[in-house]
Amino acid sequence: MPSEDPLLVVTAHPGDFVWRAGGAIALATQRGRRAVIACLSFGERGESASLWRKGLSLDEVKAIRREEGEKAANALGAEVVFFDAGDYPLTETPELMRALIDLYRRLQPSVVLTHAAQDPYNIDHPAAREIALKARILAQAPGVPGEGEVIGAPPVFCFEPHQPEMCGFHPDVLLDITPVWERKLAAMHSLGAQGHLVEYYTDLGRRRGVQAKRNSGPNLGLPVDAYAEAYQRIYPQVTTELD
Amino acid sequence: MPSEDPLLVVTAHPGDFVWRAGGAIALATQRGRRAVIACLSFGERGESASLWRKGLSLDEVKAIRREEGEKAANALGAEVVFFDAGDYPLTETPELMRALIDLYRRLQPSVVLTHAAQDPYNIDHPAAREIALKARILAQAPGVPGEGEVIGAPPVFCFEPHQPEMCGFHPDVLLDITPVWERKLAAMHSLGAQGHLVEYYTDLGRRRGVQAKRNSGPNLGLPVDAYAEAYQRIYPQVTTELD
Amino acid sequence: MPSEDPLLVVTAHPGDFVWRAGGAIALATQRGRRAVIACLSFGERGESASLWRKGLSLDEVKAIRREEGEKAANALGAEVVFFDAGDYPLTETPELMRALIDLYRRLQPSVVLTHAAQDPYNIDHPAAREIALKARILAQAPGVPGEGEVIGAPPVFCFEPHQPEMCGFHPDVLLDITPVWERKLAAMHSLGAQGHLVEYYTDLGRRRGVQAKRNSGPNLGLPVDAYAEAYQRIYPQVTTELD
Amino acid sequence: MPSEDPLLVVTAHPGDFVWRAGGAIALATQRGRRAVIACLSFGERGESASLWRKGLSLDEVKAIRREEGEKAANALGAEVVFFDAGDYPLTETPELMRALIDLYRRLQPSVVLTHAAQDPYNIDHPAAREIALKARILAQAPGVPGEGEVIGAPPVFCFEPHQPEMCGFHPDVLLDITPVWERKLAAMHSLGAQGHLVEYYTDLGRRRGVQAKRNSGPNLGLPVDAYAEAYQRIYPQVTTELD
Amino acid sequence: MPSEDPLLVVTAHPGDFVWRAGGAIALATQRGRRAVIACLSFGERGESASLWRKGLSLDEVKAIRREEGEKAANALGAEVVFFDAGDYPLTETPELMRALIDLYRRLQPSVVLTHAAQDPYNIDHPAAREIALKARILAQAPGVPGEGEVIGAPPVFCFEPHQPEMCGFHPDVLLDITPVWERKLAAMHSLGAQGHLVEYYTDLGRRRGVQAKRNSGPNLGLPVDAYAEAYQRIYPQVTTELD
Amino acid sequence: MPSEDPLLVVTAHPGDFVWRAGGAIALATQRGRRAVIACLSFGERGESASLWRKGLSLDEVKAIRREEGEKAANALGAEVVFFDAGDYPLTETPELMRALIDLYRRLQPSVVLTHAAQDPYNIDHPAAREIALKARILAQAPGVPGEGEVIGAPPVFCFEPHQPEMCGFHPDVLLDITPVWERKLAAMHSLGAQGHLVEYYTDLGRRRGVQAKRNSGPNLGLPVDAYAEAYQRIYPQVTTELD
Repeated sequence: MPSEDPLLVVTAHPGDFVWRAGGAIALATQRGRRAVIACLSFGERGESASLWRKGLSLDEVKAIRREEGEKAANALGAEVVFFDAGDYPLTETPELMRALIDLYRRLQPSVVLTHAAQDPYNIDHPAAREIALKARILAQAPGVPGEGEVIGAPPVFCFEPHQPEMCGFHPDVLLDITPVWERKLAAMHSLGAQGHLVEYYTDLGRRRGVQAKRNSGPNLGLPVDAYAEAYQRIYPQVTTELD
Repeated sequence: MPSEDPLLVVTAHPGDFVWRAGGAIALATQRGRRAVIACLSFGERGESASLWRKGLSLDEVKAIRREEGEKAANALGAEVVFFDAGDYPLTETPELMRALIDLYRRLQPSVVLTHAAQDPYNIDHPAAREIALKARILAQAPGVPGEGEVIGAPPVFCFEPHQPEMCGFHPDVLLDITPVWERKLAAMHSLGAQGHLVEYYTDLGRRRGVQAKRNSGPNLGLPVDAYAEAYQRIYPQVTTELD
Repeated sequence: MPSEDPLLVVTAHPGDFVWRAGGAIALATQRGRRAVIACLSFGERGESASLWRKGLSLDEVKAIRREEGEKAANALGAEVVFFDAGDYPLTETPELMRALIDLYRRLQPSVVLTHAAQDPYNIDHPAAREIALKARILAQAPGVPGEGEVIGAPPVFCFEPHQPEMCGFHPDVLLDITPVWERKLAAMHSLGAQGHLVEYYTDLGRRRGVQAKRNSGPNLGLPVDAYAEAYQRIYPQVTTELD
Repeated sequence: MPSEDPLLVVTAHPGDFVWRAGGAIALATQRGRRAVIACLSFGERGESASLWRKGLSLDEVKAIRREEGEKAANALGAEVVFFDAGDYPLTETPELMRALIDLYRRLQPSVVLTHAAQDPYNIDHPAAREIALKARILAQAPGVPGEGEVIGAPPVFCFEPHQPEMCGFHPDVLLDITPVWERKLAAMHSLGAQGHLVEYYTDLGRRRGVQAKRNSGPNLGLPVDAYAEAYQRIYPQVTTELD
Repeated sequence: MPSEDPLLVVTAHPGDFVWRAGGAIALATQRGRRAVIACLSFGERGESASLWRKGLSLDEVKAIRREEGEKAANALGAEVVFFDAGDYPLTETPELMRALIDLYRRLQPSVVLTHAAQDPYNIDHPAAREIALKARILAQAPGVPGEGEVIGAPPVFCFEPHQPEMCGFHPDVLLDITPVWERKLAAMHSLGAQGHLVEYYTDLGRRRGVQAKRNSGPNLGLPVDAYAEAYQRIYPQVTTELD
Repeated sequence: MPSEDPLLVVTAHPGDFVWRAGGAIALATQRGRRAVIACLSFGERGESASLWRKGLSLDEVKAIRREEGEKAANALGAEVVFFDAGDYPLTETPELMRALIDLYRRLQPSVVLTHAAQDPYNIDHPAAREIALKARILAQAPGVPGEGEVIGAPPVFCFEPHQPEMCGFHPDVLLDITPVWERKLAAMHSLGAQGHLVEYYTDLGRRRGVQAKRNSGPNLGLPVDAYAEAYQRIYPQVTTELD
């Protein structure tokens, strides 16, 4: 499986992987990499206000969010695994941790994406991040029980929160997602419950694109109307060339 | 000349480019890239204590430091340009600025290396950085007079100061310099005036190497006894793939 | 109830709302606003050393602290609700969280006050803050069960810790409490168990007053001997005029 | 004059007051306040690339930028004073400082707007800020020569840089500029040399508007499609009420 | 017992007190102070990869780590108390907390050493720190049950993490450990499971020694080839003389 | 002279060494150490508002400030050297720098005190600090001309600014000045031009005293009504014992 150079995305809710990392996911799958989304909850309580206002039951809300999430993952060429761990609050449990460790070891991801460290607007985002990082470290230790091989030290990137400056998010990396913008747009449109955000994230994609253009030399050849996503590294970049 | 993908290193003193960036320079030249060192002074007052204690004159000190610097650059396969702008204190002048802008435009560097933002042990290091960054910005503007084409937006990396934690230096990037370690070592040995630092920087190279190994996935294939140099980006990395 | 423009103050212990926010509370009630203090514990273990040294039982300590707290709230024109959740350590429980969400929804506060993010001298202060912020976010979501309407996004202000610089507290807002200083003083005096702090907080009130005077234009008309309290915002101020 | 409650905006270049503070200026003048823009240079070298590419002379560039700046100020209902101090680099001189101190004392501003502390993309922005803040402090001291009365302590707000996260800009204040959006748009369109930025700043206005909506209670009554500008305070807010 | 001026070291795993604080411990015991290490786990899962790869059972791993830890403590002249609270993850429990509070009160430490605030490579390090700091605060309160006298406010020092810059560690204090370097070396060699780290920490000791030399006046009389350990204070230093 | 263990205090204005460092100075001289104050200006423009309002001439203001400064230094048992370099703005010149380097080399200070890094209320404070730190580094280099021996690396402490939280000041060190409080008080009273600050700094002394008491173990034996001054280190503390 390591030959697939897999991307693992750990998010609290289905919307997160679309708005914040849809471009990175589509880029990876378009290049033949495997992308797996570990979606810890359905966002049934915290991210589904419009469904609750319609009077739906908890199970109905979850079913709709699952369907939307699968449609979105599909649009990005990715697999999505729902852990159904509950949201608002999303809480760490030994079972959830074990399942996630197993996924890390089975998948052997070469890159991990997850939430930023803080979010004063959403309590599940930092919780999901803590769970993702903790499971990654536990999956590295031979002494921690579970099937499969321990993992190495895949780099971790935080994707951009909704109000980045309030979340201590510093955009270290600007990823050119112009080649897959249409696929991200399609994935965004499949999230019926939060349709009003498509414009916000389209603006953001363009804004980050302008900045990517402004911060890159001619070698990358970014178009004038590029789209980009911003990321922040948790660990130092290890490289064999400065560029 | 852009086809040479040139590296520009702006330092206050000759020692700086050896101790702090010798590996990056040697890596670049080994791959056929051009590397030019803009050495703003000879470090004649601030970095040559042992020569002064021998009773040499200012001109003698400068001559020795020039020779050492050229030898070191040679060992790294790089060109060195001395601006002889004086040190302790190194001061910005319109002439120095103009000359540096000209160099930027002539060279069209694809990457720039310079000092970190602070250094409570050395007043010239932050001064050289300010000069380097200011000249880079001025060289981008068509309205600023001078020959040659304006430059684009080459990324800038700060190399590691002597006492990094006291300088606000955060190691964002670990560069594997194992393939050129012997050349860095040779360059360090050519700096007679500061021979006692070779051990300190050899230890540091190994230390950063261990950390590089610890922070990288298997794809990079770093050896157990890797050597590395640490860098900090000033601008966000622009990329077409997360890895 | 929204017409009352209510102020909600969430604190770990009874003393906290007096020393740190007594002026803001008295200002609000003097202007006809409702002020409700959610006091999560009686500070029976962590904030009552002198009572324990007298050999009182836990229930006696709690009864005394409750009485003091009610007297202090009274002096400020506020209501106090004791949650009796235990202190040293104060711990989040589902019951506490539910009760606090209910209070948020019932009260519909237009402003929330609580503790700063860190306190290396007191473990309950950051815990109370986490609980306050978490409950506020949960109370906003229609999917989270409970009675009453969901709340909006009331601004949150942190009040000043005992040793502010050790707690990462940055005074963003200086509130002129001169008009209600006597009422704050009276409230402070009603806290028998910690009488030695009155001088410390009187000095602080004067100190923040001098700073408020120093940082304000003539329009506010602060007196020379003003008293003030310092606060730190968690969310950006939203306004229709810069002043 | 103090009865006019004047707003003073100190910028490096003509574009700055339009893109970054046009809304605040228009809001002030619409409410009958006086707004004066101290524009330290014409942005003739650093902000006029397209004019230079047309082969215009320095004087021609300056004349065009002056005209554009006046047109933009006019659209905002403000006065603009050009100091013609040169740009790229903008440099502090005793004459410039004296002239600015005089303006502070003559105008007696009740609010000051200027650049953020850092800008790794533009060397004049932090320079203009330093000059603005220094002159404000000097204008407060009776011992500093010059005509007119010393000033008080008007609050200072930094407006938003082009790439805010790279400039250490933290949005403390979101100013609702919906009522004057059309005037800001008109001012932006009068800047011929930089027309491509109108879309970028329209997106930004909408983005900050969404955030303002998200961070405000119902009392402010922001519309769903609000426009906002972000600001950062240098000094603590002094107030008589928390809201 | 207070006359012994005891040092308390709270660590997650046996290795921690050797690599990171072995010098401080040996210095204390050499001067006749008592040193007690509260080792919360055996590091059986997270710090014993080589033992697991040999196929040992959990009990065998723990027994080996206990023996190594005792040997190392012995080499440093210190006592070690194992709390066997489990690792990877190390979790706070009421029992662990109670036992640690008792130790604080029994020992009445005059100095406490523990982990830094963050560690993105190890989940137990920050957990152990939280437990250490929390127990110290609880042990100060007369209202918290337990035997013995409440403690005062012993200063707390964080020892240096493996990759300090990634852990927010800032070296505030450089401790000259030259006189006890041989004892630290002996302790390091007694940790069979992690022998490859001896070189890394010897390099680090020399590196911190060079920096200690560089940052000290002649009064301290540090040798040229000094060894040092770096620490970070959590509370301000209280002193009767600046030096 | 080194046997005198001299203290060097570099300040912008006469008031600074009294309000901010009077206790440290008096403590040093009481213990037989030499204390020299390098007062770069008379604070004639920026710190003498009341004298200007009386209509005095520049020379009269300077004469009064000189006299006050000498009286205050006398009360503290210290020598004061006035450099008369002008204030508001205080500007670095080669002459000032040379004179200060000479003083460093002549005095061979074992400790240096100066201003904090920022001060948004006073432009001379950060300028004086820059000059003090720059001269200290230049005085260390044999290549920098001047009489006397080069100096070592005396630790530098920043004293507390008027509004510390606005100046990025973090109180690292709390110095017990109880034994010399009366002398500091006497020195404060000798500063006629700024009499209104005595109360502010008396409150501050008591406030820092309470904090010193709260942060110290029993060994230091601080009294309940201690007075203290806060300081911030620029370089790491080098020590042979943790306490």
